[in-house]
Order: sequence, then structure tokens, then C-alpha cells
Amino acid sequence: MSAPLIAIDAMGGDFGPHCIVPASIACLVEFPSLHLVLVGQAPILEELIARHPAVDRARLHVEHASEVIGMDERPSQALRGKPDASMRVALELVRSGRAQACVSAGNTGALMALSRYVLKTLPGIDRPAMVSPVPTATGSCQLLDLGANVDCSAEHLYQFAVMGSVAAEALGVANPRVALLNVGTEEVKGNQQVKLAASLLQQAHGLNYTGFIEGDGLYRGEADVVVCDGFVGNILLKSSEGLAAMISARIENLFTANIAARLVGSMALPLLRRLQGDLTPARHNGASFLGLQGIVVKSHGAAGVEGFQSAIRRALIEVRENLPQRLHGRLEDLLL
Amino acid sequence: MSAPLIAIDAMGGDFGPHCIVPASIACLVEFPSLHLVLVGQAPILEELIARHPAVDRARLHVEHASEVIGMDERPSQALRGKPDASMRVALELVRSGRAQACVSAGNTGALMALSRYVLKTLPGIDRPAMVSPVPTATGSCQLLDLGANVDCSAEHLYQFAVMGSVAAEALGVANPRVALLNVGTEEVKGNQQVKLAASLLQQAHGLNYTGFIEGDGLYRGEADVVVCDGFVGNILLKSSEGLAAMISARIENLFTANIAARLVGSMALPLLRRLQGDLTPARHNGASFLGLQGIVVKSHGAAGVEGFQSAIRRALIEVRENLPQRLHGRLEDLLL
Repeated sequence: MSAPLIAIDAMGGDFGPHCIVPASIACLVEFPSLHLVLVGQAPILEELIARHPAVDRARLHVEHASEVIGMDERPSQALRGKPDASMRVALELVRSGRAQACVSAGNTGALMALSRYVLKTLPGIDRPAMVSPVPTATGSCQLLDLGANVDCSAEHLYQFAVMGSVAAEALGVANPRVALLNVGTEEVKGNQQVKLAASLLQQAHGLNYTGFIEGDGLYRGEADVVVCDGFVGNILLKSSEGLAAMISARIENLFTANIAARLVGSMALPLLRRLQGDLTPARHNGASFLGLQGIVVKSHGAAGVEGFQSAIRRALIEVRENLPQRLHGRLEDLLL
Repeated sequence: MSAPLIAIDAMGGDFGPHCIVPASIACLVEFPSLHLVLVGQAPILEELIARHPAVDRARLHVEHASEVIGMDERPSQALRGKPDASMRVALELVRSGRAQACVSAGNTGALMALSRYVLKTLPGIDRPAMVSPVPTATGSCQLLDLGANVDCSAEHLYQFAVMGSVAAEALGVANPRVALLNVGTEEVKGNQQVKLAASLLQQAHGLNYTGFIEGDGLYRGEADVVVCDGFVGNILLKSSEGLAAMISARIENLFTANIAARLVGSMALPLLRRLQGDLTPARHNGASFLGLQGIVVKSHGAAGVEGFQSAIRRALIEVRENLPQRLHGRLEDLLL
């Protein structure tokens, strides 16, 4: 394989190039064969790159794009109004084959709309899905969809299951257990879409469908791929982030209540903070868009340098595994 | 007010009367004016009561019911096939006015179906909702619906908002902030039902509607009442329970890794376990069914003695606050 080249939308996210440039440079150090193209306002990017004189400029390119899509801009506006947006130019680099993947921390809705428009979906896929690993008691599971699709039919859920299974395999899970998120594990439970999706999945050959899973079963590690619509997935993910943050804050408070507690805390907190690292989204950062004719990874808008690095890492794995090609092959067998 | 009398379905839950009888007796000690009727197989109940010779039998009655509804039985089966089920007899005591509330740890679907059939809904309410407090960074919020209704229209969400607001007031929150759970806080976000419910709530007078809330906002304590359909609410609640349990287990593991960690753990874990108590569902146990012509509290099926006690406590608060009556009054003003 030739050296991987990834296009980076350098203007997105809450911290923009101030976070993305150092994260990109750190990845170039970590992966000596990696090439990156930073897309965005060249003067700003060059100035930030100049702060790292040791960087290997032969592997770090800058592609100028004059416009930036705002975090609150409507996807339709981003699609029509900004032909020279950094996000769009980065996606065009993937479409033209110059880059093998695009990473952005920008506006999620705009990134999804532009990805569909610029890259198109794989044959048989109606809608791309957003997938991300979630830490569980036994490792992690791939949860999808995470918000790209708020209203889903049974067929969409079926497609998500197929795509999630292939993605989990690409990440090294053999014969991944695929489950449908539901309010109970009995057959009679759930809404119409979920029941119908279950009957489609039961008939699918070559897919290790294990049935319904509940919210607590997900965290017990009962499946490798958990499928739900984007409304439910987004709320599950964000409420989990909120709960984990609340527990962390309460733990910190616990050890500041009095001198004795502070003393115990001075020994316990370093250990506990290591745990916190395992649970925070930054470590598991990088949601992939699945079902496109190209690789797109969305970094959390609030991600810092470390978080954006792990989004680039995820893109690199997908490039090495040639994920869209693998998906295309499996979809031909599994799609209805 | 006359002495409160609560009917207890003594046969439900994972542990049945072995948990429910001691929990009931503990509540009689805690509340000296409380009367309870234990409904179920009298010989079993009498034998378990006899183990507590100090109990005030003038306040503890037993009502025989020959049948028990299984935890996996279909609601339709429970409705038609078991006229003498403990759950049903307990609800009949509320309907006839002999008891002011019913508490059950039994089959949720059956309890909802029987409650609707026996007690009927309040005028203007299509479907009762299940509400439960969820711990937040600043206290707790009332989350509804929790699984009674997996498919909801905008009108149902509106009714849940009204009922949740009145319930929060009854629990002592002045002018409760009511928010709709969504995948974003901007107006354009969400599915059709949520967007339509938002426009209904914006027009409602006498309701402190604050807009959309995301999953992390819920845990930050940004609202006192959070409204969603039963599918989303159930998954949010169960995934939160699963995540909290996973974090607890990881914390315990952290402090057994080696001798040094064990030493720190011997001091830190007692403090941390106190926190765990605040987060476990047992402490916040007792989901109320709102919108019925009577008070019904559902205890978690897996709840132990302490959990079932807190379900009885919740029922007692609702009796004292005369919740169905208050709801009825407010619904007349607020319903469309």
C-alpha cells in the first residue's frame, strides 16, 4: 500500500486550528508513513505550523480554503452557500482520490450533508450512519446510529446492523455479536420499527445477530455492535457523558470535604483519574460515518489535542482496513 | 386528614414477599400513622409477618388473593386471565376507596394495563406515564415517560410535560423548569413529534417550559422535569444504571490491583461507597404512574428491602399531596 494521506478540515471544532494543527503534527510523529493535508485558511495554518520547526513538511501539506462553516449553521446553508469551505474542500480531496480519508471536528449536520453530497453513499445504502466505540465492562462496543438519522425505518436499522458488523470486524472483532437496542429483551417488547428490524435480522445469513439488548446490557458488554436510531443513540451517548462527568465531579468533591478526606484523596485521586481517562469521550473519540464511498471521521467538537489525535488514528485504521471496500463487498451479500 | 392506608401487592418483584413484608414492616415503624394492606397469598404472608412479633397488627392488614402475575406474563393475559391476582386486588382496593395508593414491584406492563383498566385515566389524559427521579449534579429531576409508552405523539409528550410539572410541584419544587429531551438545543433539531411538542409547549400558559435539553444537560441539572417518549426514557434510565454499575465495578477493581492500591482502597472505598448509594436506583426507587384516577407506584423488580421502602415513601408523599386531585385541577387549565 502507498503511504496513507488524510485530509484534515483544520477549521472545525470549538478550538479550530489551535487544537487541530498540534494534533496533526503529533500524529505525523506517531505514524512515520502518514501524510496529512491541512485544509483551511493558509496564513493561519502556516503561522501555527511554523511554531513546530521540527515538523516534516514533506508529509504535511496545506490546502487553502477561504470559507469556514459555523458550528450552528444549517446543513442546507452549508451545502448551498459555501463552495470553498474547508470541510467541503477536504471532502473533495477524498472524492478525487487525492486523500483516502477526511477528518473534521466541525458542524456534524453539515459534515453529514456534505459527505453524502460529495462522496455519495454505497450502493444499497439509503443513509450513512454515525458509529463510535462506547466503553463497556468487557472492552467496548460499536454504537450506531449516533444522531445522523433521527427517524429510522426497520430497513435503515437493518442496514446499520450490517455496517456496524463490518466495521467491528475491521477493528479486529471476530464474528461480532450484533444486538438491537430495545426496552426489553422479550420478543413482544419495543416499537414497530424495532420489532420489524428484529425479524429482518433474524433472517440474515452471515450476521451474528443475538437479539434485543437493554441499556444496561450494553454496558455489561453483552454485544459488540449495538444498533438504534440516531435519536436514541445520541441521547444514550450524551446522557452517558453527562453521568460520567457528574460521577467524576462527585468523586472529586468527596475527597475535599475535610482534611482526612483530602489526605485519602491525595492518594486515591491519581488512581481514579486514570479510570476517568478510560471513560472520557476523548479517549474513544472519533465517530465514523459508515455507508459512504469514502472514509469520513467526525471528531467531537469539544475535543482537545488528544481527542483529535484519536480521530485521526481511527481514520488511519479505516484506511489500512480499506473499510468502504470491505463494506461494499459485504453489503452485496447481506442487503435485502 | 385520616390515617393513610396503602395497598401493597406483596407477591411481585424478584424477591416477592420475602423482601416486601420486611420493607412494609420497616415503613410502619418509620411512619407511626401509616396503615398497610398486604395483598397476596395469606398463609405465606402471615408466616412472614409472624417473624416480626413486635409489629403493630392494628396497622398491618392482610388481604388474601389466590393468584400471582408472573414477571414475564403478557399484559393482555394478566388482564383477562387472573381476576384474583394480588396486583389486581390491590388496585381494586384503591378503586373502591379503601386504600389511597397501591405499590407493586410486579410486572410493569401488567401493572400499567391493570391500572388503566381498574382505575381509569384522568379526564383529558390518553395514556398514563411513568415518572421517576434521576440524580443530577444539582439534585434530581423527574424523568418521564420511562417505558409505559413506546410510541408517543406530540400531544402525549405535551400531556407528560403537564403531569411531570404538577408532580414536581407536589414534591416541593416551585415553578419547575420543564424541558423536552432532544438531540440538540436548536429549534431545527429533532424528530417530528419533538418539534411539534415544543411548539405546543411554547404556547402553554402556566407552565415553565425552558426548551430542549440534551442528555448531558439532564445530568448537569438544567431542568426539574425532563420529558421524552417511553422508548427513549427507558433506554436512558437503564443505560445510566448500567454505566453507574460499570464505573462502580471499575473503581473497586482499581483498588485491588496491588498491595499499595489495596491500602489506599481501604481508606477510599468507604467514602466512595457512600457516593454509590446516592447513585443507585434503590435510593431513588419508586416510579409513579401519573394520569390515573388513583396513586400507583411501581418499585423496581430487582429492588431490595430498602428500595421497596422508598417506593412506599413515594406513595405516601403522593397521598399526602393528593396528587391525582392536584393533577386533575391543573389539567383542566392546561390541557388542549
